[in-house]
Amino acid sequence: MPADINVGLIGYKFMGKAHSNAYMTVDKFFDTTAKPVMKAVCGRDEKAVAAFAKRWGWESFEIMWQELVQRDDIDLVDIGTPGSTHAAMAIGAAQAGKHVFCEKPLAPTLDEARRMLAEVRTAGVKHMVNFNYRRVPAVSLAKKMIEADEIGEIRHARFTYLQDWLVDPEFPMNWRLRQDTAGSGAHGDLGAHAIDLAHFLVGDLASVVGQKKTFITERPAEGTSDGLTATAGEGTEQVTVDDTSMWLTKFANGAFGTFEATRLAPGRKNFNRFEINGSKGTLAWCFEDMNWLEYYSTECPEHSQGFRRIMATEGCHPYVGNWWPPGHILGYEHGFTHAVYDLLEDIAQDRPCWPDFRDGAQVVAVLDAVDKSIDSGSWADVEKIE
Amino acid sequence: MPADINVGLIGYKFMGKAHSNAYMTVDKFFDTTAKPVMKAVCGRDEKAVAAFAKRWGWESFEIMWQELVQRDDIDLVDIGTPGSTHAAMAIGAAQAGKHVFCEKPLAPTLDEARRMLAEVRTAGVKHMVNFNYRRVPAVSLAKKMIEADEIGEIRHARFTYLQDWLVDPEFPMNWRLRQDTAGSGAHGDLGAHAIDLAHFLVGDLASVVGQKKTFITERPAEGTSDGLTATAGEGTEQVTVDDTSMWLTKFANGAFGTFEATRLAPGRKNFNRFEINGSKGTLAWCFEDMNWLEYYSTECPEHSQGFRRIMATEGCHPYVGNWWPPGHILGYEHGFTHAVYDLLEDIAQDRPCWPDFRDGAQVVAVLDAVDKSIDSGSWADVEKIE
Amino acid sequence: MPADINVGLIGYKFMGKAHSNAYMTVDKFFDTTAKPVMKAVCGRDEKAVAAFAKRWGWESFEIMWQELVQRDDIDLVDIGTPGSTHAAMAIGAAQAGKHVFCEKPLAPTLDEARRMLAEVRTAGVKHMVNFNYRRVPAVSLAKKMIEADEIGEIRHARFTYLQDWLVDPEFPMNWRLRQDTAGSGAHGDLGAHAIDLAHFLVGDLASVVGQKKTFITERPAEGTSDGLTATAGEGTEQVTVDDTSMWLTKFANGAFGTFEATRLAPGRKNFNRFEINGSKGTLAWCFEDMNWLEYYSTECPEHSQGFRRIMATEGCHPYVGNWWPPGHILGYEHGFTHAVYDLLEDIAQDRPCWPDFRDGAQVVAVLDAVDKSIDSGSWADVEKIE
Amino acid sequence: MPADINVGLIGYKFMGKAHSNAYMTVDKFFDTTAKPVMKAVCGRDEKAVAAFAKRWGWESFEIMWQELVQRDDIDLVDIGTPGSTHAAMAIGAAQAGKHVFCEKPLAPTLDEARRMLAEVRTAGVKHMVNFNYRRVPAVSLAKKMIEADEIGEIRHARFTYLQDWLVDPEFPMNWRLRQDTAGSGAHGDLGAHAIDLAHFLVGDLASVVGQKKTFITERPAEGTSDGLTATAGEGTEQVTVDDTSMWLTKFANGAFGTFEATRLAPGRKNFNRFEINGSKGTLAWCFEDMNWLEYYSTECPEHSQGFRRIMATEGCHPYVGNWWPPGHILGYEHGFTHAVYDLLEDIAQDRPCWPDFRDGAQVVAVLDAVDKSIDSGSWADVEKIE
Repeated sequence: MPADINVGLIGYKFMGKAHSNAYMTVDKFFDTTAKPVMKAVCGRDEKAVAAFAKRWGWESFEIMWQELVQRDDIDLVDIGTPGSTHAAMAIGAAQAGKHVFCEKPLAPTLDEARRMLAEVRTAGVKHMVNFNYRRVPAVSLAKKMIEADEIGEIRHARFTYLQDWLVDPEFPMNWRLRQDTAGSGAHGDLGAHAIDLAHFLVGDLASVVGQKKTFITERPAEGTSDGLTATAGEGTEQVTVDDTSMWLTKFANGAFGTFEATRLAPGRKNFNRFEINGSKGTLAWCFEDMNWLEYYSTECPEHSQGFRRIMATEGCHPYVGNWWPPGHILGYEHGFTHAVYDLLEDIAQDRPCWPDFRDGAQVVAVLDAVDKSIDSGSWADVEKIE
Repeated sequence: MPADINVGLIGYKFMGKAHSNAYMTVDKFFDTTAKPVMKAVCGRDEKAVAAFAKRWGWESFEIMWQELVQRDDIDLVDIGTPGSTHAAMAIGAAQAGKHVFCEKPLAPTLDEARRMLAEVRTAGVKHMVNFNYRRVPAVSLAKKMIEADEIGEIRHARFTYLQDWLVDPEFPMNWRLRQDTAGSGAHGDLGAHAIDLAHFLVGDLASVVGQKKTFITERPAEGTSDGLTATAGEGTEQVTVDDTSMWLTKFANGAFGTFEATRLAPGRKNFNRFEINGSKGTLAWCFEDMNWLEYYSTECPEHSQGFRRIMATEGCHPYVGNWWPPGHILGYEHGFTHAVYDLLEDIAQDRPCWPDFRDGAQVVAVLDAVDKSIDSGSWADVEKIE
Repeated sequence: MPADINVGLIGYKFMGKAHSNAYMTVDKFFDTTAKPVMKAVCGRDEKAVAAFAKRWGWESFEIMWQELVQRDDIDLVDIGTPGSTHAAMAIGAAQAGKHVFCEKPLAPTLDEARRMLAEVRTAGVKHMVNFNYRRVPAVSLAKKMIEADEIGEIRHARFTYLQDWLVDPEFPMNWRLRQDTAGSGAHGDLGAHAIDLAHFLVGDLASVVGQKKTFITERPAEGTSDGLTATAGEGTEQVTVDDTSMWLTKFANGAFGTFEATRLAPGRKNFNRFEINGSKGTLAWCFEDMNWLEYYSTECPEHSQGFRRIMATEGCHPYVGNWWPPGHILGYEHGFTHAVYDLLEDIAQDRPCWPDFRDGAQVVAVLDAVDKSIDSGSWADVEKIE
Repeated sequence: MPADINVGLIGYKFMGKAHSNAYMTVDKFFDTTAKPVMKAVCGRDEKAVAAFAKRWGWESFEIMWQELVQRDDIDLVDIGTPGSTHAAMAIGAAQAGKHVFCEKPLAPTLDEARRMLAEVRTAGVKHMVNFNYRRVPAVSLAKKMIEADEIGEIRHARFTYLQDWLVDPEFPMNWRLRQDTAGSGAHGDLGAHAIDLAHFLVGDLASVVGQKKTFITERPAEGTSDGLTATAGEGTEQVTVDDTSMWLTKFANGAFGTFEATRLAPGRKNFNRFEINGSKGTLAWCFEDMNWLEYYSTECPEHSQGFRRIMATEGCHPYVGNWWPPGHILGYEHGFTHAVYDLLEDIAQDRPCWPDFRDGAQVVAVLDAVDKSIDSGSWADVEKIE
């Protein structure tokens, strides 16, 4: 009989909605050992968080996260707030003996990330960072194919995460555009996803050299926002994070890579793409066509070699069999359900989670090394997080 | 304050799951006037339906649909069973004064479809057929663009709904392969979707000429199935429905069209595609890339005309703003949520639903006319359902 | 040592240019047994044909084709004029003992086509119709793969040849829009290509039912034209051929097919596409991406099945090794060079040509049967040309 | 009346063939002021060059380039040999007062490139480097659209030139894999094309930081080769050039860029691709689909924005109107014909050529700066060639 795992969620905007949906759907589609109980949601605006709790079926709400993490009826603290707040919350939760599920990037600084890792280890709680693209079925399939040696030894990898929501200079300020709340811009927001996928699929980045830039340095002041869309307020404000970040890397295994993250690429809505070239094949994927994986194998008959467009919606593909029959497209939020499913199973069966806070800190270490390389104008080694 | 609409669902397999999910998600993502209450689910296998009810949060269950439709605490009967059962259930529900939401195709015969239409009209209840592709955002966008004259007068339309799940001759029998339960094969199952999209986007089919064939006439007997996958039983059974159906049409507005439905097209998993050529533009869409709409306009500057691939995930696109930020892919089930949202609003605000049973019957009339054209070897007029 | 084959070309506009280019390039890129000598070109406008001869290196010119076909120094008569003139020229050439290479469609009527076939047989000369798409490398590759049973038994085939050059109602008249010169419109011009590809790849069409339509019935009068672009004259003229043609077919081997030809599909410039579904795979090709062949095989590992996009530019692909290294795109005219190469080799080595006048007549028989089916409103059998 | 320009070509393998074809076709398809006369071809293997001359219609041949450049009947020397030989030949030709058309990269070292530039300037002859991708119609169109401000201010540009012909470790050695003949590997061969396109479309690269690697360091010895395909000899040989090169750049205009060149990307045959993101639009192109240009404009109506796939085969597109009607695909060699057309017109009308030796030297300066950055492990400024 499934055990109950009581969840306390901090944050109720974009990520709060995505995580709530994952808890709501996971035990409908997946045969779970542990059943999530949507115990409490936490946010600073009482009226708004109360409405959110009611809408999504959270049993209660808190306005102080410090209260939430102390509640005896909470087993798992889920952190879906801006990056600058992650460390305090995660450490608080760990110290209170709660498992922690934290949105990416783990923290804006490597110091904070290290402390978070130390604390969850000391506390002996489960810890997981939500790099949700790992569990898109086509990406999980790519991982399996790489592990099964279907592309051979990896030589090059290119990761580009391109968006265009800041192309309009009249798009107003929000927390993602301020250094103190977001830590960085495209670099930490999009680059972090790219790095995590690289860690997952290729391996550790050993050294990097990069550059960043803020093309649009001033924007209309922030007005109202519902977490999804925003309207401008009066006056203007300085943008204090990068629009664009790009770097080269040497992977520890000898492969070479390029990385690009930007919010200024017209027409690229959520173009989180990788292409990995091995000694006998290539794999490529892009979130904008998230159900498809492209694969080229040098082992096909010579006359019929070509990039195969695999629709990763078959029963034999990771996670997919739990949803719909073959050929039925999945969407963005399904990756969150997959993450929550694995998280709950890992807790229930006392297994390590992945990606964990070490993985999350390793991503921050790469972001950090890119910044160091920019300061020095030369290659920087990436610190290895043990 | 939202009124409650009490729902009774018949069927708990593929469609039961899809409909349950729609009721579960609709009031989380959409601001609904009316809130659905998942009152009861009905199925013949008591153990299975009880488990389904528990899993999905249906308050109760029934094993006889006749009981369900009579319950005072049910406002809306949702029919998600094979086509041969629709007429009795829908008529029973209507006579009991319930609104009716019915899966497609409305009925295996035009007679039944006509009786269903007459009964819901007599009863004065709301009636809707679930042609879910209409409410995929890219398709809804296509409709708006056609109405806004963005492709001009329509001249040609081609609809191809291709699948490949029957390519393997060892795939065992199931209800979809028997005349008495399914009415027809690819013709009614896939062709019905194509026809409804044609009605929605182009207009009435006036006359048709077609052909059907069963390429694989015998299959392993049915074994066990969970609604999604099937295993074979002992012996073989005759397939009594078509694998393939195709026809030409003259639309009432003078346009020409081709239609194809098959379950034997290797590599086409759910290739529900249309292309519509107008006097000043073209629109094309395929379910396998359901978030994208292709558009060509002769009104762009001459040197930069080309097919535009519109990612229908912006806030300005139909339904989309309720889900995630721009660029976040939606999946198969979202169309069901959109349908349920419109259905609930139509009930709450006493507006007609679309597509309704007349639309559903009109689809059956086309299927019927194709069959007549096959019998006669010549063009057949499509009966106009008033 | 290569023998010389003296060529006399009739027509010096679009096809004249394409054929001249083929004769000019063939012995540069291919190791030919026989070398073409560009002996004479023929056209009615003396000044224009003289200029053309000079430009392209034809040794001489004629203004009467009757003169050309009688010349002793001509071995091969190449007919690149409108369809209504083919029969007289081909028959004249054959009776003069010349080999004949004729543009498609062979003739506007089946009677003429039959006579042409009879005459070349009587004369014992080589005869070939230029269905140039057969020798696009990706199409030739498709043929080889079908013959090697790489898609199994063919079940469905869809052929769509879509263009858009007549979408603008102000596009003026030309010979292609008049019944008496062109025979038919999209039907014979584009449909003929589709039928020939179907014959090549699938087999004989046994019976058909179709429809045609002229959407734009009147156009500005013809002005000047250089064979490629046209300007309007004064007044208007009635269009006497179809814009659009479509039909269903039963192939002799039991497969089903759909065909569409139109000049009114905005955005489709030269969308000559086929998709062929077999019992274990699918092949698809489109001229607009002529270097690519799409292939799906059910025999790949289950988890990595997908449509392969084969770039048919490798040394192992038909004809390709004679041009450039792998990955170097070929264009429209290369197919003509391939045809001329095969034609010259067939003459030099006294082998039958393909497609020959029988194949050409068979295409006309299909066009004819479609017309009959339109007259009768019912299926028509296709006459088998022996 | 067209003047004759007498051409002497050095080299008769891959590039010799491509250039010969350009001279043969240019005055057939284009109305040229000056007519090229294929006077002499030069190569060290007398038998082979004699055969080539005969096949392609060169009036004579030479086995010493020094003889060729001195001939009075030569106006234009065309250099299609490996890069290490360019400087001596180009300087010899210039000193003899001949115009010079040189294959890319201009020279293996910046010193040589500078000397070549100085000599052609001193001699007052026309000079052009053959970066043939500039004159692919879709690329020329991109240039025109950028100049017409159709994508606004450029912010990012990514250039990837990926091939896979060295993936097989058994592929034998040839001159392209030796430092002394080729200068570098993917870096100078493919990278040079990418840089030139960047110069053409974006502007000067101001500074760079990069990395290179030879993944496969030993290969079977060279055997026989026909310039297109190669067979192995006995034993092995060390590879002395890179397989892979990649770098970041800051453009002089403030834009950021990434560059990648490799011969080890399975499935990428000739994947010379760019994507340029501006303040109001994006342009993307790839040689493997060379007839198509992708364009996104933020100035389209919001609901129908999307990447447009422009088929650059219309009469209004650069160069295209001289070939075939709209929708007829061009191939690799057409770019050479366009270059030769412009070159001949520039000579005839005494206009500067583009790209000229300064442009060619600027490309070498970038390649050089990348090498410097690799030596230093930090950013290197690119020398500006005046």
